[in-house]
Amino acid sequence: MTFLPAPSLSASPARGGRNLTQGMLDTVGRAIVTGAYDGVPFPTEAQLTEQHGVSRSVTREAVKMLTAKGLLSARARVGTVVQPPASWNLFDTDVLRWLLERTFSVELLKHFTELRLAIEPEAAALAARHAEAHHLEQIRGGLDRMRNADSGGDDPLDADIAFHVAILQASGNPFYAQLREMVSTALKTSIRLTNRIAGRNANIVDHAAVCDAICRREPDLARAAMKALIQDVLDLIDTVE
Amino acid sequence: MTFLPAPSLSASPARGGRNLTQGMLDTVGRAIVTGAYDGVPFPTEAQLTEQHGVSRSVTREAVKMLTAKGLLSARARVGTVVQPPASWNLFDTDVLRWLLERTFSVELLKHFTELRLAIEPEAAALAARHAEAHHLEQIRGGLDRMRNADSGGDDPLDADIAFHVAILQASGNPFYAQLREMVSTALKTSIRLTNRIAGRNANIVDHAAVCDAICRREPDLARAAMKALIQDVLDLIDTVE
Repeated sequence: MTFLPAPSLSASPARGGRNLTQGMLDTVGRAIVTGAYDGVPFPTEAQLTEQHGVSRSVTREAVKMLTAKGLLSARARVGTVVQPPASWNLFDTDVLRWLLERTFSVELLKHFTELRLAIEPEAAALAARHAEAHHLEQIRGGLDRMRNADSGGDDPLDADIAFHVAILQASGNPFYAQLREMVSTALKTSIRLTNRIAGRNANIVDHAAVCDAICRREPDLARAAMKALIQDVLDLIDTVE
Repeated sequence: MTFLPAPSLSASPARGGRNLTQGMLDTVGRAIVTGAYDGVPFPTEAQLTEQHGVSRSVTREAVKMLTAKGLLSARARVGTVVQPPASWNLFDTDVLRWLLERTFSVELLKHFTELRLAIEPEAAALAARHAEAHHLEQIRGGLDRMRNADSGGDDPLDADIAFHVAILQASGNPFYAQLREMVSTALKTSIRLTNRIAGRNANIVDHAAVCDAICRREPDLARAAMKALIQDVLDLIDTVE
């Protein structure tokens, strides 16, 4: 299964220093998200450069990327400041990953699942209308992998994600298709949690119902089946709170 | 009505050259989207710098931002190349604006409205559950502005957008709230089109039904009312195709 590369906010021309920039981005991004700078002024460019033992241009690049992700902003006469969490771009996979890794955030997962409850049933309905043969094959392929994972022959997490991403792709709508990276990122944490609570891998019967409805070109059934599946996830998450 | 600043992919530390970078970003971004580089190699950094009469660092910055937006990528031994449209980040307001301005793209508006059909009914249902007093005031304020616009006392476009954005904000879910910039950007074109087709401003009665259901804390009614409203938009758009 091959997918087009998704646009990444951290994309940057390949050249020397890129790995250093990525490393610094990751360290400082995670520090901001975990509150390391709460109540203290954010370091100056010179301080960051010294603390991390990198060049000035690596620091500048990392700060610029964190600004683009909504974590920092530059203010005249004040310098760089940390932005409030409401400004952090949750549709950026780095930001989402840092937040999910932070501590186990049930509230964030609940909010993400509420978003899935909007997106994925409609994507399934669109897929039932517009999926081409190779899309149906990818969806069936994802389901086969989930069955295989159930008997230990595949990774249950990867298989489950492949199934959901295949449906977003099959919608024939580029807005839905572009949510695949974000959905993959958050599903990693979400599926791990729900499988642990439920004491089993994902419910194959429920997933098969979605797949069948899409393959039989039944938009309303596909929407309802996906809705039921995600409502179950939401109910499971609610038992944790 | 004040909203938190949304994360912007084009955010960049305020300093000299920022306006030049923004200008170049806009020019080159629009050129890529309108197909100016289709079938020809993308210019080198030196060529771009000369063509646009800017400094090398302005060029480098603009190319980096276009890369982050999914329009360009750097390949070893090939240089910078234009990415296929499927890689362009539709959740980036610059990219979305360039695409909407390109030529009048009914298909893009249809796809966007299919996304709204997922997002906004659920947002309305969440708002009916979670909206606080000041959120309800903002939603009612948006509706008042729409009524006022109907008799020429306000801008019908701004009023309509304010109503829809207020509901996203009232959802109490940060993922929905963060879609406000993107929804505002595309609604500008969408509302203009549908009002022209329908030969009138937005349907106040339909919007009032959504507002009432949210204020009366009826999630299912709010969802259904918003769904009906957006399905009407989709039906109108389908008459154009």
